[in-house]
Amino acid sequence: MKALVYKGPGQKSWEDVPDPVLKEPTDIIVKMITTTICGTDLHILKGDVPAVTPGRILGHEGVGTITEVGSAVTSLKVGDQVILSCISACGHCDYCKQGVFSHCLGDEGRSGIGWIFGHLIDGTQAEYVRVPYAETSVYLLPAGVTPQQGTVLSDILPTGYEIGVKYGQVKPGDVVAVIGAGPVGLAAIATAGLYGPSRIIAIDVDANRVEQAKKFGATDGVVSTDADWKDQVLALTDGLGVDVAIEAVGIPQTFTMCVDIVRPAGHVANVGVHGHPVELALQDLWISNITISMGLVNTDTLGTLLKLVAQKKIVAENFVSHTFTLDNILEAYDVFGRAAETKALKVIINA
Amino acid sequence: MKALVYKGPGQKSWEDVPDPVLKEPTDIIVKMITTTICGTDLHILKGDVPAVTPGRILGHEGVGTITEVGSAVTSLKVGDQVILSCISACGHCDYCKQGVFSHCLGDEGRSGIGWIFGHLIDGTQAEYVRVPYAETSVYLLPAGVTPQQGTVLSDILPTGYEIGVKYGQVKPGDVVAVIGAGPVGLAAIATAGLYGPSRIIAIDVDANRVEQAKKFGATDGVVSTDADWKDQVLALTDGLGVDVAIEAVGIPQTFTMCVDIVRPAGHVANVGVHGHPVELALQDLWISNITISMGLVNTDTLGTLLKLVAQKKIVAENFVSHTFTLDNILEAYDVFGRAAETKALKVIINA
Repeated sequence: MKALVYKGPGQKSWEDVPDPVLKEPTDIIVKMITTTICGTDLHILKGDVPAVTPGRILGHEGVGTITEVGSAVTSLKVGDQVILSCISACGHCDYCKQGVFSHCLGDEGRSGIGWIFGHLIDGTQAEYVRVPYAETSVYLLPAGVTPQQGTVLSDILPTGYEIGVKYGQVKPGDVVAVIGAGPVGLAAIATAGLYGPSRIIAIDVDANRVEQAKKFGATDGVVSTDADWKDQVLALTDGLGVDVAIEAVGIPQTFTMCVDIVRPAGHVANVGVHGHPVELALQDLWISNITISMGLVNTDTLGTLLKLVAQKKIVAENFVSHTFTLDNILEAYDVFGRAAETKALKVIINA
Repeated sequence: MKALVYKGPGQKSWEDVPDPVLKEPTDIIVKMITTTICGTDLHILKGDVPAVTPGRILGHEGVGTITEVGSAVTSLKVGDQVILSCISACGHCDYCKQGVFSHCLGDEGRSGIGWIFGHLIDGTQAEYVRVPYAETSVYLLPAGVTPQQGTVLSDILPTGYEIGVKYGQVKPGDVVAVIGAGPVGLAAIATAGLYGPSRIIAIDVDANRVEQAKKFGATDGVVSTDADWKDQVLALTDGLGVDVAIEAVGIPQTFTMCVDIVRPAGHVANVGVHGHPVELALQDLWISNITISMGLVNTDTLGTLLKLVAQKKIVAENFVSHTFTLDNILEAYDVFGRAAETKALKVIINA
């Protein structure tokens, strides 16, 4: 088959590789229908994720058709269309029993799995994929939801919802600020609206992105390059700050911006993937009664979000800016990698 | 009357001052029966809290007898014995309605009160005290609880419980670590036990304090000057870390120790009062699903804890190491200020 292979920092190749085969009785093989590229794939390509070694097929999102099932698989069959979660979970370890699938202790070449596709095992930017722990890691695509819509559910929608909105404990009447209006920030904006906040403020360096966020449910926007950006945000509150500040960028400056605009007893929900430490001003914050959360998505809400997508309460196709075919995946990477210029959100790649 | 007056950094005096008088209809005047000294008072005396200006009477804990009530006070009367909360709360602002009394927006010379005794208004290390917003800021001392026991409820017991145990979300079966076995850390240890954790590990630089913590309910102890302290803690878990790490010291090192021993999806509850920023290793932690909380006590649990003290489920007198009389308060400060040497916990000062 053909697949997108990581060849070391800065290098990737669309090339022939062996077809995947069943390894464990709980595995399935899936023929991909559609996949996509995540900002994390760009981090990997920069060499920022040393656990990813040359030869690894990238990608952790997508929808496909089952072509083979392992001997222990009873609830899935050949021909089923399934959404692959970006998180693989054994379903029976201590963490899985608590719903913390991101820290599953299952064994897939090492103890502790969670995010493994395109990381510790071969991923979804390929014609075929081996899916471990299939029955606890895939979701049947229901009638009325397209594979392209389903692909948005592999990672970004649950990430924005679980790590931004749920960890941030958004509640009715809250003023919510989301810093970073990329795909995951927009997913947080779209799902924050489910909880009846009084305002959702989109904050980004890019005025176009701020404006675009309103299509996802943002009620207000602030361009963070404005010198008075913080005053603009506070003017949208009672002056004390926002109830929930969601960080969806992954750099120290945006994390600190969240801490600076959150009100006493508010929540900072970090969603961004960070590469550097941040300075936490505990000398001021110890008295603030704020809570700071962070984490990798569990995708325990994937089924819930799938229902909401099927009911059009979340418009999944709004997240898709470009569509490519799998043999043009290198072009898709190019467009996604220049998102500021191309205005790319999710790029859908059809097999 | 006589009172302990802050005279600027490093200076205090036990001297004659005017008796307090009612200023607002919601005030009461209390004749102190017993008071105590908090670590925060030592911080103030070092000059670390610039909001405290020379001339201020220190102290924010204690029990007294009401001698005068304002015209709006209906539920309290002259002669009642009351516990003064370290937090003053108007009872009707947005924060008070949420139970976040620490960030009360009531007006007592400035908007926003909370901790004001011995800070923004005169405090409790005196013969008499003016208590603002009395009906929402004091608790009647029930029969069977002594003023000395009640004094432990003004601040340290609610602080350890609310900011350590409740914010840390201790639950049955958890492994809880408390770093810092001073009075507030011991309060966290004593109240963590209410939730049925599987272990409570006391961690301190002082082996005597670690041992003493067992009287308060610690099941295990680790001396943090041991080179392998972290391995000792992990060996008391399943190897993945503690469920809840409570910081009760207030320096960057102990905060980072908490982050280092907490398991994925665990809680770090900061109770310590900090004077410096800390470096948060978000490049490692973003994926950890941990929650970090912090804050000033609300004393919304004071009534609950008072019941538990009355029932002897929490042994308040265990927190008392020394007893003085009010005219010997300078000696009490000396003993409390040399706690490492004198083994002082709470020093009770009787009028």
